[in-house]
Amino acid sequence: MFIYQKTLPYPVKIARPDPKLAAMIISQYGGPDGELGASLRYLSQRFAMPYPELSALLTDIGTEELGHLEMVGSLVQQLTRNLTAKEIENSPMAPYFVDHTTGVYPTAASGYPWNAASMQSTGDVIADLSEDMGAEQKARKTYDNILRFSVDNPDVTDVIRFLRQREIVHFQRFGEAMELVRQRLDQKNVYLFNPAFDR
Amino acid sequence: MFIYQKTLPYPVKIARPDPKLAAMIISQYGGPDGELGASLRYLSQRFAMPYPELSALLTDIGTEELGHLEMVGSLVQQLTRNLTAKEIENSPMAPYFVDHTTGVYPTAASGYPWNAASMQSTGDVIADLSEDMGAEQKARKTYDNILRFSVDNPDVTDVIRFLRQREIVHFQRFGEAMELVRQRLDQKNVYLFNPAFDR
Amino acid sequence: MFIYQKTLPYPVKIARPDPKLAAMIISQYGGPDGELGASLRYLSQRFAMPYPELSALLTDIGTEELGHLEMVGSLVQQLTRNLTAKEIENSPMAPYFVDHTTGVYPTAASGYPWNAASMQSTGDVIADLSEDMGAEQKARKTYDNILRFSVDNPDVTDVIRFLRQREIVHFQRFGEAMELVRQRLDQKNVYLFNPAFDR
Amino acid sequence: MFIYQKTLPYPVKIARPDPKLAAMIISQYGGPDGELGASLRYLSQRFAMPYPELSALLTDIGTEELGHLEMVGSLVQQLTRNLTAKEIENSPMAPYFVDHTTGVYPTAASGYPWNAASMQSTGDVIADLSEDMGAEQKARKTYDNILRFSVDNPDVTDVIRFLRQREIVHFQRFGEAMELVRQRLDQKNVYLFNPAFDR
Amino acid sequence: MFIYQKTLPYPVKIARPDPKLAAMIISQYGGPDGELGASLRYLSQRFAMPYPELSALLTDIGTEELGHLEMVGSLVQQLTRNLTAKEIENSPMAPYFVDHTTGVYPTAASGYPWNAASMQSTGDVIADLSEDMGAEQKARKTYDNILRFSVDNPDVTDVIRFLRQREIVHFQRFGEAMELVRQRLDQKNVYLFNPAFDR
Amino acid sequence: MFIYQKTLPYPVKIARPDPKLAAMIISQYGGPDGELGASLRYLSQRFAMPYPELSALLTDIGTEELGHLEMVGSLVQQLTRNLTAKEIENSPMAPYFVDHTTGVYPTAASGYPWNAASMQSTGDVIADLSEDMGAEQKARKTYDNILRFSVDNPDVTDVIRFLRQREIVHFQRFGEAMELVRQRLDQKNVYLFNPAFDR
Repeated sequence: MFIYQKTLPYPVKIARPDPKLAAMIISQYGGPDGELGASLRYLSQRFAMPYPELSALLTDIGTEELGHLEMVGSLVQQLTRNLTAKEIENSPMAPYFVDHTTGVYPTAASGYPWNAASMQSTGDVIADLSEDMGAEQKARKTYDNILRFSVDNPDVTDVIRFLRQREIVHFQRFGEAMELVRQRLDQKNVYLFNPAFDR
Repeated sequence: MFIYQKTLPYPVKIARPDPKLAAMIISQYGGPDGELGASLRYLSQRFAMPYPELSALLTDIGTEELGHLEMVGSLVQQLTRNLTAKEIENSPMAPYFVDHTTGVYPTAASGYPWNAASMQSTGDVIADLSEDMGAEQKARKTYDNILRFSVDNPDVTDVIRFLRQREIVHFQRFGEAMELVRQRLDQKNVYLFNPAFDR
Repeated sequence: MFIYQKTLPYPVKIARPDPKLAAMIISQYGGPDGELGASLRYLSQRFAMPYPELSALLTDIGTEELGHLEMVGSLVQQLTRNLTAKEIENSPMAPYFVDHTTGVYPTAASGYPWNAASMQSTGDVIADLSEDMGAEQKARKTYDNILRFSVDNPDVTDVIRFLRQREIVHFQRFGEAMELVRQRLDQKNVYLFNPAFDR
Repeated sequence: MFIYQKTLPYPVKIARPDPKLAAMIISQYGGPDGELGASLRYLSQRFAMPYPELSALLTDIGTEELGHLEMVGSLVQQLTRNLTAKEIENSPMAPYFVDHTTGVYPTAASGYPWNAASMQSTGDVIADLSEDMGAEQKARKTYDNILRFSVDNPDVTDVIRFLRQREIVHFQRFGEAMELVRQRLDQKNVYLFNPAFDR
Repeated sequence: MFIYQKTLPYPVKIARPDPKLAAMIISQYGGPDGELGASLRYLSQRFAMPYPELSALLTDIGTEELGHLEMVGSLVQQLTRNLTAKEIENSPMAPYFVDHTTGVYPTAASGYPWNAASMQSTGDVIADLSEDMGAEQKARKTYDNILRFSVDNPDVTDVIRFLRQREIVHFQRFGEAMELVRQRLDQKNVYLFNPAFDR
Repeated sequence: MFIYQKTLPYPVKIARPDPKLAAMIISQYGGPDGELGASLRYLSQRFAMPYPELSALLTDIGTEELGHLEMVGSLVQQLTRNLTAKEIENSPMAPYFVDHTTGVYPTAASGYPWNAASMQSTGDVIADLSEDMGAEQKARKTYDNILRFSVDNPDVTDVIRFLRQREIVHFQRFGEAMELVRQRLDQKNVYLFNPAFDR
């Protein structure tokens, strides 16, 4: 179970609202490579993980990503504060506003509601860790693209850099986990697959 | 942010595996009225909630539902332990197994991956609380249906009764929140809508 | 079965086309809280409704919403009449136009085609009525947001106000239906759930 | 707008419940080629139809399909009456039951909720009528397959034959409509496309 | 199996990048009526086609559409070359860019990822060919709409005209195939349905 | 463009039909980790790949996977030949049959039509190759699970083993490609990310 703590992993204080930027950053809340998918992927995979240290790793990172999800939600909320209907109407946030006002909803920037089809949980330790390493690189890529759009808003850039850096750390940790699994499964299994069926 | 605590809100100890039951209970993990939708709904809505006590209520219940999600994941995991491929092949769990082995994945019993289209977050306090009351009743209904299928497995029944009871408590608390909002917005607003546009 | 009558429940006569507004209003045709979902929700739920007067209520409101769906379709059609390709290309309607020209298609403003995941029909009288009350408030919220975008086009505002008012009336009627059910099920069942499983 | 009439287009009286058959027939309620898609397709396309007689044809057939949707809903309801939980649990209807009890919900037999991606409305008279002719043949195919599964339940077979026959009549009528359009657009346009862009 | 050949069916050489146009043309890559759906529809249907010449026809056209898919991908790639982040940020391509940078991804212009719900493969020769004729007209319509948006970019217009012309040829060929089937099934089966169940 | 060649990459000759097995194997046609997703992922990513040898690698493997997709389609077709309606009705293939008869349609075993949300194409060389390595391991896992269900049908097992082996080879090749990229991007970039934004 989880205990909520009121502080964020990193402070979010946005001075200047910007509905256009909010409409892009929402993709890290509910987009294909965003924080919702990240946390749910790891918190789901851990049930089938055969090694306790990897189960703990998935729990750790999954729980951390829940905090990142909260940070991204705060970014969207602060970027849409005190806007007039006119300002929103003339921004790319208009279609989102029709259905969600300025509430935070898990959708991609494209308007596609989050869908579990964008993640996997396979009950196979190597397949899951490979998926996780891919997921971290794709999340890093999304933050790169948001950075390209937020150069004029340093408050946002600062938060995004923090989040991006954490994805790189997670990628490293999943890489180490993969190494550990490879050694345990079979020291000569250089092809990284479950050997059970190739006897 | 969230802190993980190793204990579950209520113990899950299933003696007898049952792939058929697992294939049904997964709907409370990733089905239309399951715990993933519940926790994400409340944890998303709180960003736009104008009253601090309601924001806190949503955070409380959303965090509790994360723990329930973990309980349902544990149910699925324990119900699928130590099964042979043959036992799974001849159960309704077979299609799930092809893509997820016995990993825990957020899908409905029908095989439909969880989709954010089944929840809303509207930035409108009355619309959100009305949605929440509906959501709790729909979750209660799903637990009722699982109870109808699990009569032969008392370990499961016991856990499901606990979870079902919590939904009823949440329904009550959202009802009280609605009452509070109604009084604040306008003591005569018996129609329960935002009065801003009907001047 | 249904008989078609050529008049609309309320006249739709839009003098000035506006592709931007059309691209937003389409959400009340095929968006998550729009008229398609409303009519289909009620017309589906009535099959399992145990009390004849509630089955009749769902049929009444579901049939009325079919007429509102037609009104929203007319709004979209009239708002996109006689536009040049250039006018559409430079409006938020451009992506819609690529696939649907100015035909009326059931999609949200965000471009997400209507999906039954956004409605429920549970065979449980209390769960269904709770969902319905939530649905009416969410529809009301969408009309509020469209009103915020249509202040410059009074022909549209006038129609939207009519539609919005009907949602409030429906919310009231579902509230009365819930009261009736509560009394029938069990006069002391203040928690609003089906008591069948808690004996 | 629409007026509801209490009689069905053809009587539905099923003596023997059968959850397996109900779980298949639901595809004509909310499956890819079912009656919901049919009625919504035609009732949406008519807004952009340039010829009044074709607009009227789409309204007629779309309204008739709403009555067929009601018939299919009645079939599902009657096929699931008075079943025990055990009978449902051991039938292919079990996953549906978990989320919808015996309520009628728009989904395919496969468990995929109805999705507007399975229909089109293009604002192009020839594309729409071609889609409609395809839709009628696909609906006829679904009824053929249901007939293959319902040979032991003549009450069902009788209703399905009626519905299937109507699809063939609609196919004919759309074929005649296409002929009419071809003649109007250009008597030599044997390729059936809008000539506007090939000057 | 397939052999890749480095030349395109028709040359794609776009001098002037245009992110707005790219954001529209992507619909012919992964939109409801685009080339991915076309090729997959025909290459899937051929397995169940009872007549060898029709199976060959589906293989031919399906393989050709794979080449068209490649052409559309090239269009998108060339239209997004050497753009600055600022140019993309201020174009309708911005939401796409957040998740896909300038990579080619199968989505509609509306931002809806390609979904197999927009195609059918029914194992029924008449239903499949009717669907195919509809599909070709809908693809032609999409090219018509892209032409309406690309008048200022003759390099694009030239390629789109080629692709559009091929859809018309395919429509003709499927019409001839339907004629052939009609004659084989039953010379008097003017209603175009499988007669197996109406004896 | 692509040339079709009538031979399969590996012969498919199934003596004994088996609708249950067909209903599971379809997941390698249109499931989340199947051959459709594989070929489309690689054939889409190659447009943005900055190094010619990697673009060629993606084209090679993507084209090969198109041949594997054809093999899986042949498996499904041959496993469903000459079955009676009764045999299908009493198998897990029944819901599929209602909508697709024995035609080949891109869906998961769970009944979820293929959805591009299960793949990515990011325009970022490291993110794409990481995703590809994950995809190959997930495909290998699916073949492992199908092998667990097909032990009694050696004709099937033989084909699945071939396909599974190819995924392992592809995984290796993508691993080598990643190594090549790492060396080019920056010999010290051990964290595997695009360095452009961390200056």
